[in-house]
Amino acid sequence: MHILTKKTFAFCALLLGPFIAAQAFAAQTQAPYEDAAHRLLAKGLAEQGAFKALEKITAVGPRLTGSPQAAAAVAATMDLMRSLGFDDVHAEPTEVEHWVRGAKEEARAVSALAGTVPLSACSLGGSIGTPAAGLSAEVFEVRSFDELRQAGDKAKGKIVFFNRPWDQTFLDTFAGYGPAVQARDRGAAEAAKAGGIAALVRSATTSLDDFPHTGLMHYEPGTVQVPAAALSTRAADRLSDLLKLDPAARVYLWMNCRNEPPVISYNVVGQITGSEKPHEVIVLGGHLDSWDLGTGAHDDGAGCAQAVEAVRLIKDLGLAPKRSVRAVMFMDEEFGGAGGRDYAKAERRKSEKHIAALESDRGGFRPLGFGLGSAKNYPKFQKWEPLLQSIGLFWLRPGGGGLDISFLAESGTVVGGPVPDSQRYFDVHHSARDVIDAVNSRELELGAVAMALVAYILAQEGT
Amino acid sequence: MHILTKKTFAFCALLLGPFIAAQAFAAQTQAPYEDAAHRLLAKGLAEQGAFKALEKITAVGPRLTGSPQAAAAVAATMDLMRSLGFDDVHAEPTEVEHWVRGAKEEARAVSALAGTVPLSACSLGGSIGTPAAGLSAEVFEVRSFDELRQAGDKAKGKIVFFNRPWDQTFLDTFAGYGPAVQARDRGAAEAAKAGGIAALVRSATTSLDDFPHTGLMHYEPGTVQVPAAALSTRAADRLSDLLKLDPAARVYLWMNCRNEPPVISYNVVGQITGSEKPHEVIVLGGHLDSWDLGTGAHDDGAGCAQAVEAVRLIKDLGLAPKRSVRAVMFMDEEFGGAGGRDYAKAERRKSEKHIAALESDRGGFRPLGFGLGSAKNYPKFQKWEPLLQSIGLFWLRPGGGGLDISFLAESGTVVGGPVPDSQRYFDVHHSARDVIDAVNSRELELGAVAMALVAYILAQEGT
Repeated sequence: MHILTKKTFAFCALLLGPFIAAQAFAAQTQAPYEDAAHRLLAKGLAEQGAFKALEKITAVGPRLTGSPQAAAAVAATMDLMRSLGFDDVHAEPTEVEHWVRGAKEEARAVSALAGTVPLSACSLGGSIGTPAAGLSAEVFEVRSFDELRQAGDKAKGKIVFFNRPWDQTFLDTFAGYGPAVQARDRGAAEAAKAGGIAALVRSATTSLDDFPHTGLMHYEPGTVQVPAAALSTRAADRLSDLLKLDPAARVYLWMNCRNEPPVISYNVVGQITGSEKPHEVIVLGGHLDSWDLGTGAHDDGAGCAQAVEAVRLIKDLGLAPKRSVRAVMFMDEEFGGAGGRDYAKAERRKSEKHIAALESDRGGFRPLGFGLGSAKNYPKFQKWEPLLQSIGLFWLRPGGGGLDISFLAESGTVVGGPVPDSQRYFDVHHSARDVIDAVNSRELELGAVAMALVAYILAQEGT
Repeated sequence: MHILTKKTFAFCALLLGPFIAAQAFAAQTQAPYEDAAHRLLAKGLAEQGAFKALEKITAVGPRLTGSPQAAAAVAATMDLMRSLGFDDVHAEPTEVEHWVRGAKEEARAVSALAGTVPLSACSLGGSIGTPAAGLSAEVFEVRSFDELRQAGDKAKGKIVFFNRPWDQTFLDTFAGYGPAVQARDRGAAEAAKAGGIAALVRSATTSLDDFPHTGLMHYEPGTVQVPAAALSTRAADRLSDLLKLDPAARVYLWMNCRNEPPVISYNVVGQITGSEKPHEVIVLGGHLDSWDLGTGAHDDGAGCAQAVEAVRLIKDLGLAPKRSVRAVMFMDEEFGGAGGRDYAKAERRKSEKHIAALESDRGGFRPLGFGLGSAKNYPKFQKWEPLLQSIGLFWLRPGGGGLDISFLAESGTVVGGPVPDSQRYFDVHHSARDVIDAVNSRELELGAVAMALVAYILAQEGT
């Protein structure tokens, strides 16, 4: 479109109408927070501090649990919180897994008919490597575990290739992730049970491209451990096409990833101390560790940046919450959640009461809604929905949250978090595309503003 | 986030709940269309034909009105419609402006104190060029026309630099575009009135980067014509900083753009012919011309691709609409709307009745709502809102549309269109960033599905 006409002005006014209407409604029922919502939104969009925080977090590079960069991110986020004037900035230890990708990971297919075809591949987190000289074998392609189980010994001695395409038909892409990710998680175990010598898994992504997507895999106790790698979706298509042409084609695979002993890492904590009930805490969290192919900008630098920004906005607006509002950068979400688990059971928690915890771990995209509480306690929160609508969200419903705060939920803390649009998340998730260029500053900020508003209301009203 | 747990499954079910609820509501009141909505969404997301159409449209390159590439896009979209089996595919002539950027456009600042500073710049559409040898002058920086008018003769003989930053505080970025774009539109005229010899304008964009954003400018009759160019936002900041250090710094500017005589171009038209009332038409439109720094992927390749895809979905699902559903690729939106104007008054229209026209010209982003009709006739449409909610939109309200279909509205056609999230639009708008890599296939498709559903209901129900 080219230029703003009078007609367009009228249309904009129309679009903004519902927000104004929502604010009018809020004025009647939620008067104390209407002004706070407006100020949080205006300051957030004017300053866009979440993106500045994200620049600092991603500047250290990929933050694989247990890595030197993860340690650098601990130092960087402590510096960031101190520079913003947060209270009680400190790090809390947690013992985390330490998997190392290693320098070499390479896959190629070789066919007497079609020659050599390079395949974009990456080792899956937790996988063992191949022998130093690599391995090679024919390939057995399946769509499902059932198909593999029914194949008898056809997979024996072969590389099992799980090539189940992502089901695009779900409006919410998270509904497609579950079926798509099974082979990444358990493909190596299933391959080994069928006599396979390695697992190649089509990347769990909504995108058709040449970027492999990594992620955690698990071996099963009592099952032989075989190497597991993801192929980019284009490489998976290429290999599948090649196997139709030449079923005897072989794949060559080199991976020198390895599991090393656990290391001590840290959760990073900072807050605004509550003016009336300082020991009652609302946690705002994201996870500081990331995968290592990109720089974890959406997953979950975004959540960390939003948590820090939400606390900054409340602080710099002088909103003076009655209860403490705390940002926590959890370590080790991607390898199982050690940081969240250790945070919940740390000695310091005994003198605190965590009334609520909000986590953002679905990417820094435009927030569409906010999940909060359970079906049981949601009715208490429902009345705040118009306030969220006044800052551009469409709904407040039970649900939400993330792995890191689920350990707090076990002892009664109300959990929740923003729910952003999911269309783009799995394009970048766990791949080299998850970098700061994939993050829009305004979208990121709107999530921070939503977290700030909900945290502030909870800090004043309790749960 | 790392893996789908039972908890996440429960959460997804929760998120999908409202869509299921919306569908249940639809089943009671909108039974004939509930199934169509579901099938349009499932087929659209499974096949994502909008992105395939967009690949064909952007493959011809930038489609500046009157350019050879715009002519190539006419041929390409006719081929596309024919390959999809549309009825009555044809082109309708329209006389359009023909502005040519020329090979050279360059700007730099030179300061005795700071040396030479290159400035990312681009000529504005419709601008005259500089003399062949370029021009150079001191710079007079202002924020507004008022500031310039009050400056007396301080701008005389200088380059007037309009450096008004975009107001980020509006939730809907279209509300920020109006104030930001004034200097692009009328800066040259105001500069000339103040005795200036050229206008440099801060790009109208939400992004801070090194990409200049072009767009149409207008001279005023009776006012001297001076060259006008946009600076990238970073270049504008750089120049402003330099002028604080050295007010005597000069800018050197070379532009060999020029206006040439009008040329004959075409709107491209294709349809599914209605089974009962073939002469009653619902138009689905986008504009085929674009700016020339990128390939006009969002503006407005997206709208064209969505219009074609919406017709394809209705056709390939065998929905057999009662009235004709027509895709129109309008030419020359960016230089004033000749295509839309000529379409509305073409001889062929006399035997047709255009009951509704829907245009997508706000980028191929996730649709949040749909505008349709006026405050007066909207009550007739309101009942369809749950159907739109069943495909992921949040509202149906009066409003919407675009320049090209506004000429139809003048004779009573109901107009409307999808309203996508606006956070990212002005990052790419009219710049080299507006390329297909900036478009997410799923988001684009959701807009096409929404257009298809509304068009289909209108084709069955009338207005």
